[in-house]
Amino acid sequence: MSNVIQNNLELLKRLHIDIYNHDFLLTWERTNDEIKAVLTVAQLMNNLHKEGISFRSFDTGLAISIFRDNSTRTRFSFASAANALGLGLSELDEEKSQIAHGETVRETANMISFLAEIVGIRDDMFLGEGNKYMREFGAAIQEGYEQGILHQRPNIVNLQCDIDHPTQALADLMQLKNTFGSLENLRGKKIAMTWAYSPSYGKPLSVPQGIIGLMSRFGMDVSLAYPEGYGLIPEVVELAKKQSVQHDSKFEVVNSMDEAFKNADIVYPKSWAPYHVMQRRTILLSNNDKPGLKELEKECLANNAKFKNWECDEQKMKLTKNSEALYMHCLPADISGVNCIEGEVSKNVFEKYRLATYAEASYKPFVIAAIMFLMRMQNPAEKLQAIVNRNQKRSV
Amino acid sequence: MSNVIQNNLELLKRLHIDIYNHDFLLTWERTNDEIKAVLTVAQLMNNLHKEGISFRSFDTGLAISIFRDNSTRTRFSFASAANALGLGLSELDEEKSQIAHGETVRETANMISFLAEIVGIRDDMFLGEGNKYMREFGAAIQEGYEQGILHQRPNIVNLQCDIDHPTQALADLMQLKNTFGSLENLRGKKIAMTWAYSPSYGKPLSVPQGIIGLMSRFGMDVSLAYPEGYGLIPEVVELAKKQSVQHDSKFEVVNSMDEAFKNADIVYPKSWAPYHVMQRRTILLSNNDKPGLKELEKECLANNAKFKNWECDEQKMKLTKNSEALYMHCLPADISGVNCIEGEVSKNVFEKYRLATYAEASYKPFVIAAIMFLMRMQNPAEKLQAIVNRNQKRSV
Amino acid sequence: MSNVIQNNLELLKRLHIDIYNHDFLLTWERTNDEIKAVLTVAQLMNNLHKEGISFRSFDTGLAISIFRDNSTRTRFSFASAANALGLGLSELDEEKSQIAHGETVRETANMISFLAEIVGIRDDMFLGEGNKYMREFGAAIQEGYEQGILHQRPNIVNLQCDIDHPTQALADLMQLKNTFGSLENLRGKKIAMTWAYSPSYGKPLSVPQGIIGLMSRFGMDVSLAYPEGYGLIPEVVELAKKQSVQHDSKFEVVNSMDEAFKNADIVYPKSWAPYHVMQRRTILLSNNDKPGLKELEKECLANNAKFKNWECDEQKMKLTKNSEALYMHCLPADISGVNCIEGEVSKNVFEKYRLATYAEASYKPFVIAAIMFLMRMQNPAEKLQAIVNRNQKRSV
Repeated sequence: MSNVIQNNLELLKRLHIDIYNHDFLLTWERTNDEIKAVLTVAQLMNNLHKEGISFRSFDTGLAISIFRDNSTRTRFSFASAANALGLGLSELDEEKSQIAHGETVRETANMISFLAEIVGIRDDMFLGEGNKYMREFGAAIQEGYEQGILHQRPNIVNLQCDIDHPTQALADLMQLKNTFGSLENLRGKKIAMTWAYSPSYGKPLSVPQGIIGLMSRFGMDVSLAYPEGYGLIPEVVELAKKQSVQHDSKFEVVNSMDEAFKNADIVYPKSWAPYHVMQRRTILLSNNDKPGLKELEKECLANNAKFKNWECDEQKMKLTKNSEALYMHCLPADISGVNCIEGEVSKNVFEKYRLATYAEASYKPFVIAAIMFLMRMQNPAEKLQAIVNRNQKRSV
Repeated sequence: MSNVIQNNLELLKRLHIDIYNHDFLLTWERTNDEIKAVLTVAQLMNNLHKEGISFRSFDTGLAISIFRDNSTRTRFSFASAANALGLGLSELDEEKSQIAHGETVRETANMISFLAEIVGIRDDMFLGEGNKYMREFGAAIQEGYEQGILHQRPNIVNLQCDIDHPTQALADLMQLKNTFGSLENLRGKKIAMTWAYSPSYGKPLSVPQGIIGLMSRFGMDVSLAYPEGYGLIPEVVELAKKQSVQHDSKFEVVNSMDEAFKNADIVYPKSWAPYHVMQRRTILLSNNDKPGLKELEKECLANNAKFKNWECDEQKMKLTKNSEALYMHCLPADISGVNCIEGEVSKNVFEKYRLATYAEASYKPFVIAAIMFLMRMQNPAEKLQAIVNRNQKRSV
Repeated sequence: MSNVIQNNLELLKRLHIDIYNHDFLLTWERTNDEIKAVLTVAQLMNNLHKEGISFRSFDTGLAISIFRDNSTRTRFSFASAANALGLGLSELDEEKSQIAHGETVRETANMISFLAEIVGIRDDMFLGEGNKYMREFGAAIQEGYEQGILHQRPNIVNLQCDIDHPTQALADLMQLKNTFGSLENLRGKKIAMTWAYSPSYGKPLSVPQGIIGLMSRFGMDVSLAYPEGYGLIPEVVELAKKQSVQHDSKFEVVNSMDEAFKNADIVYPKSWAPYHVMQRRTILLSNNDKPGLKELEKECLANNAKFKNWECDEQKMKLTKNSEALYMHCLPADISGVNCIEGEVSKNVFEKYRLATYAEASYKPFVIAAIMFLMRMQNPAEKLQAIVNRNQKRSV
């Protein structure tokens, strides 16, 4: 057994956490110790997996996923995490565009939860709706549990909503921790979370919001950059600013990719739709106003086209610390000359960091497994110690 | 370990049952002892689950589901039951409207069954077809087994057909048993199985038929109520009558919701399409006659609209025993002012019994698990005793 | 424990194989010993299953399937095999018609493989594409593994491509082995792999190619028959010829079903689209040229119709060895008077051999499980010995 496993186990024992039987909806609802606990357990499970050791924790039980928007990598990350923990996977296949609130949520939430341990939800299409839906779901199963309908209350993990994408942001943080050696080493590092040009429109705000909402807590200097008019949800930006003050680091909003890249240790160039466009889009989607949506898309793409120079290319990378900032992306990226004519990142820059982005993505199944484990286990360190001692190989 | 578990185990040992390796297609093909065995095992598993004890019974093996009509709660109940028993779930995704009989059933049935333990089938759209399909499927795998193609013959569980909905009716009976304290206490209780108004049409007959076909055997007085012309399959009504005579209880058919509700201990107001409409609809569906179906729907909804007063409201509930009969529904209900303008039940009545209907639904995964277990285990009491003694926690 | 199990275990120990951690893409890339190892392990697992003994080999882990064309029996075979080995199943649900090469394959392959053991791929629609896609996928995960992104490299099993259908051909060989008593007994037996009439068009070439590519290696005399113009991929026919020379058996191509049937011990009448039609179709499909496809279909069906007498009927069966050659088919067959007016085989012939074709199909889950096992286990005989000794029942 590697030292990494034993060290992470010892670290976990020292953390003060209260994740057991809570939903995991926004990273900023969890303490720094709790964030560290997720990374610690994820790293431990990652190493167990590398050594061929099973961290199966359940004999039976269901992990249910509700994807109200398309997904490939988060879907597989969730499936992988569930399987590794010994849970069976069941997907609730809703009509994607049909947002069902009120009575239906209350009932459905209970109907699918009788033997469930975990419910993973992606609901990121409508501003003001996704996170709210998760909380309505949570309130419904809480009532079901308190009224004796459910023997146990499953916990919800946010697989991307309109506000945050916690499992992505935590996988990103794990990538930073492993790239720079430790969370402590991140202090004073500059991360440029910047808008980038894309030939498509309507990309959610949850990734940039998740990044500024998490990285502002670990001593990193956050530079948020976007063309005028491409702002995020104001409340999340305010929160990130406040956190930076609390954690004694810098936070700035600029309207220039170059400025954000200057001296940056990490760059995260990623397209998104402006907040006010997402607001208009939410109303149009709710009204199923197809001509209106078409018109908005046209207007929006025309506006995007003014900012084609917001591309992460080799010239811009030269502005960064020693010309070699770490490039990050949640994938898939719009790569100029590969899957689009002009996009978020040039072919050369992406190719240089391609495997780094794969490594970044590789942490997500373990982050999700760690969150599931911490939500379901009252004494997680004790239980993990038992799993480590058990030393059960994954195959005969 | 709770007394409930030990008591149910003792009860099971005293029952004379022959469920092993038989399909479970209609409740009235099973003896009272066999019905009791299902409830007994379901209750035992329910308590094991409540105490966090696994009742996993299979190391590997498949439970296959074939849903020829939409389903959320039965789908999740089946998935939950399969997972709790340790079986993997595989769904056969057929074209929903394509009814494939003859050669194809014979072949497909064998092709998917090589490593299967259980096949769950929902086929409730066509009168005269669903149950028949299940029997064709059963005959095909019986041949496959007898001819040495299949190492073992999987068993079929009816997840709703044109005639019966046994897993629903059994969950309902379990709810009655737990509400009134015992099966014995149900003797002399009056249950009103009544049609109710709905703004939709074409709802299957299997729920009301399942209820009158099962409850007429446990000493309950059954009052079946519907507006003139809304009859069920005549043979099932005849069977229910006969059973009532055999079990020394009452059975009546009335054309008034009020009359059925009078002094009732239990009310089950639920919409369905008239038998003769379902017959016409089956022919139109078989011919894929879309204008004909549209015409029938129009005619039918117009007819339904004459009976909007068949709504279970507070006034009607006052007619019941002490004004507080147990309200039952298989869910989802058409609730006036909630998910429709006028429907089966008023908002206030539904809200009062909402959690009771959730509890009713909560038994279904355990009923299905119990049926699966009893179909596959030659000495179920012995095996359950071993599971109870094993005392394996569901998680580390 | 039956002797069959012990004998196959001893046989496996004597074979020289190098399957561990290799993809399984074409039978002719594997040595005769490796082919024998697959049949040996499949037979052993088949017997363990028959005796109710589990051959579960994994505690956790994913088997991922990518079906770029429809499938029922291979899908269930793969699901059954994965479940029997203890692997969870996850399907990648791509747009069926969208062939995504280049960057996307490289990325997707890694994104879904972090916790995967096996990836099963069906991609048989486009000549020159399917097998190539599998190799691109393999190269991508190989890079991911070598660069430290993947802890382990999953292995790919070809579930049908444009060139070969190895799991089908191996199940067919297993059927021959069991019908004639041993692989050795197949020497000198004549197998007629012949085209047959079908009222549909565009059926893949992989089954006939798989058959001539495998059976030409086990001493069987292969007679490949088709109407002029209905040739297979020339390179595969060349390969089969060469193999026949190496293994000292006969190989012929004839343009008469009668001639192929003459004195045959085994007949495999099965429709396919001519090679040059598949080439044209691939271009039309790539260009999404619907009128062109319609035109090609029309032309092709008209051409097929000239060969309606290529039906396997009782008269033709009389030409075979003692009038009782073994009839084989990968199913579903086009059966005259059953699921089409005129087809590949007459009703009487099919009915006589129907159960034999079911038996043939029954080996596929075990063949797939055997391939998976051999790809993942470094010392398969030792591991199987442990599984046999463990003697774990499949159910409590």
